[in-house]
Amino acid sequence: MDLEDTLLMMPGPVPVAPRVLRAMSKPMINHRGAEFAAMYDDCCEILADVFKTKNDIFIISGSGTAAMEAAVGCTIGKEDDVVTLENGKFGERFKDITARYGKVNPLENEWGHSFDLDEVEKKLEEGAKAITLVHNETSVGIQNPAKEIGRLAKEHDALFIMDGVTTIGGDDVRTDNWGVDIAVVGSQKCMAAPPGLSMISVSNRAFEAMEDKENLPYYLDLKAYRKSGGKSQTPYTPAVPLFFGLQEALHIVKEEGMDSRIDRHAKCAEAVRAAADAMEIDMFPQLNDRYSNYSNTVTAMKAPEGISGNDIKKDMLKRGITIAGGQSHLSGKIFRIGSMGNVQPKDILLTIQELEIVLKKREFISELGTGVEAASEVLDSLL
Amino acid sequence: MDLEDTLLMMPGPVPVAPRVLRAMSKPMINHRGAEFAAMYDDCCEILADVFKTKNDIFIISGSGTAAMEAAVGCTIGKEDDVVTLENGKFGERFKDITARYGKVNPLENEWGHSFDLDEVEKKLEEGAKAITLVHNETSVGIQNPAKEIGRLAKEHDALFIMDGVTTIGGDDVRTDNWGVDIAVVGSQKCMAAPPGLSMISVSNRAFEAMEDKENLPYYLDLKAYRKSGGKSQTPYTPAVPLFFGLQEALHIVKEEGMDSRIDRHAKCAEAVRAAADAMEIDMFPQLNDRYSNYSNTVTAMKAPEGISGNDIKKDMLKRGITIAGGQSHLSGKIFRIGSMGNVQPKDILLTIQELEIVLKKREFISELGTGVEAASEVLDSLL
Repeated sequence: MDLEDTLLMMPGPVPVAPRVLRAMSKPMINHRGAEFAAMYDDCCEILADVFKTKNDIFIISGSGTAAMEAAVGCTIGKEDDVVTLENGKFGERFKDITARYGKVNPLENEWGHSFDLDEVEKKLEEGAKAITLVHNETSVGIQNPAKEIGRLAKEHDALFIMDGVTTIGGDDVRTDNWGVDIAVVGSQKCMAAPPGLSMISVSNRAFEAMEDKENLPYYLDLKAYRKSGGKSQTPYTPAVPLFFGLQEALHIVKEEGMDSRIDRHAKCAEAVRAAADAMEIDMFPQLNDRYSNYSNTVTAMKAPEGISGNDIKKDMLKRGITIAGGQSHLSGKIFRIGSMGNVQPKDILLTIQELEIVLKKREFISELGTGVEAASEVLDSLL
Repeated sequence: MDLEDTLLMMPGPVPVAPRVLRAMSKPMINHRGAEFAAMYDDCCEILADVFKTKNDIFIISGSGTAAMEAAVGCTIGKEDDVVTLENGKFGERFKDITARYGKVNPLENEWGHSFDLDEVEKKLEEGAKAITLVHNETSVGIQNPAKEIGRLAKEHDALFIMDGVTTIGGDDVRTDNWGVDIAVVGSQKCMAAPPGLSMISVSNRAFEAMEDKENLPYYLDLKAYRKSGGKSQTPYTPAVPLFFGLQEALHIVKEEGMDSRIDRHAKCAEAVRAAADAMEIDMFPQLNDRYSNYSNTVTAMKAPEGISGNDIKKDMLKRGITIAGGQSHLSGKIFRIGSMGNVQPKDILLTIQELEIVLKKREFISELGTGVEAASEVLDSLL
């Protein structure tokens, strides 16, 4: 099979619109010239609306992980205590990155289990320079309570560092309203740009934390980004074709409007959950309070008894649809359907239909159509 | 003027072949799938020939500066002394990066002046864990003696870390033969791929230096690259479209053959120097020994008396050709013509012709043709 025909329904990289692909094949330009500067400014202006922030925004040539490291590496010193919240792989990654720069005071939940806000508060009461949160834990399909944790961070005078990699640009994120000092996102997720760039918003409070800090990372030195950002440039050579792609992708975001985009993402994920429910497939996340939610951008489901999530993934790939399995110790136990970026109802319905066929062949369901019907009902309002 | 028509004759980013541009507009693929792995392996195989090395090679989604930091950040600890050789902006950058990780013992030459190998040896005799060198100092157009410094590094048991950003893929670089423990290159220079990726070769000796080192940088952790490289993957989400572009660019390199490519680069730079000489424009570098050379990939010339290098650059840009001025304190004093990547004789001849017109209008030369004729004679053997 020609893989160029595969429908990507992973939690990123997501399919990129043809006009974005075409934008990337423009001839190179001087990255220190006026044309690049105009493109940089245009991107930042749209991103301010996407992040809902008045903070500085920078674009890093590197993945979301690079932006996570920039956030922690520039603000956290060896003697600083940081509360790291973990209920999945990316929370764990934030903990690992933080451990290279400061002292970690981790709250390690079972993966997929929602946080107890009282426990979070107790951790903060022990004293913390910062707290890290993964807003949407892509590895387990849970949306963590960013607003509430922002409130707790503020009460305890801790910097709030948030991974919005799979929410910003698709889900309802309010950087300034929630008091997020540093928010990071990857290009290849909700914004439906090509992978390879990450965007980061930085508050004045976060910049103040950098003032007295020595030996910041070099490539990810946010002070250097601030300096060159003032000239609408990047401190080091940017990945020019990815900027062409990002700009076009952000124009699509702007044309749709963030409100519609957020609604579409929410409905698409709800449709996947409705289909799963109709087929009696269990959600993986354990939501124990009213502040956590199922993700609006990726749905993590338990693999049905006797079937490996990896086999479902493989069966789907043969049929031309790429979904995701579980990461680390969840490999085989879960499977995940991403519904982020420019995903349309027809993409969801095709994916559910193929999933039904796969599950019927594996004798988990006995007839086709129930999942599609449930999903279709949710998606109707988008048409 | 439509900037898409501008001829880039800067020292990178360089013009990218149409087939490379087209490659970047392929639909996204799963970066954890078989298709990406095959592409990754194909790139690394060609790169081994380009670097002339049997060492591990990794591809980083980030600029050459990111690779420079990976080299230093993973091998150098706080107590380690490092001799940093500086005779231009990128030597200075290597010093600045190194200062964030270890103790710098800098040899700071006037920019553009060749190193005295006795002085280098004296520095090494003071004891050094490593020595950093910029093989081709792009900012001043000088080729530093990598082979000789490799020999000195070996004699003094220091790791040899080399920035080959504007030589590897276009100039004669012999990573293993010269004993380069870590060599780095950017995609947007001699290989004529789009900007945004960097490639790094790492010797076993360099990996041994990482063994006992704590708190490596995270995004640029070469141990993580080694681990995922074994699976033909990158540790974090790669910039997929840039890999499409790199692969195609490397196929062009392979089709031309490295010997021909090196010869073409050498001739093109020689042609620029011959033209400058014919027009009585002075070279900027001061070569004081037989081991240093004028660069084979970028020619740095002194701005003629009474004319700013920046004005020459601006005049050329108006005429549709992007060349470079001087960086930092050299701004205005020099101008630079890059001749790297897939540059052809006609590109050199057009650039020289336009430069002649610019210099005649500014009354530095009185008639046209002398520069073109001198360049043409050198380039004849390529046709």
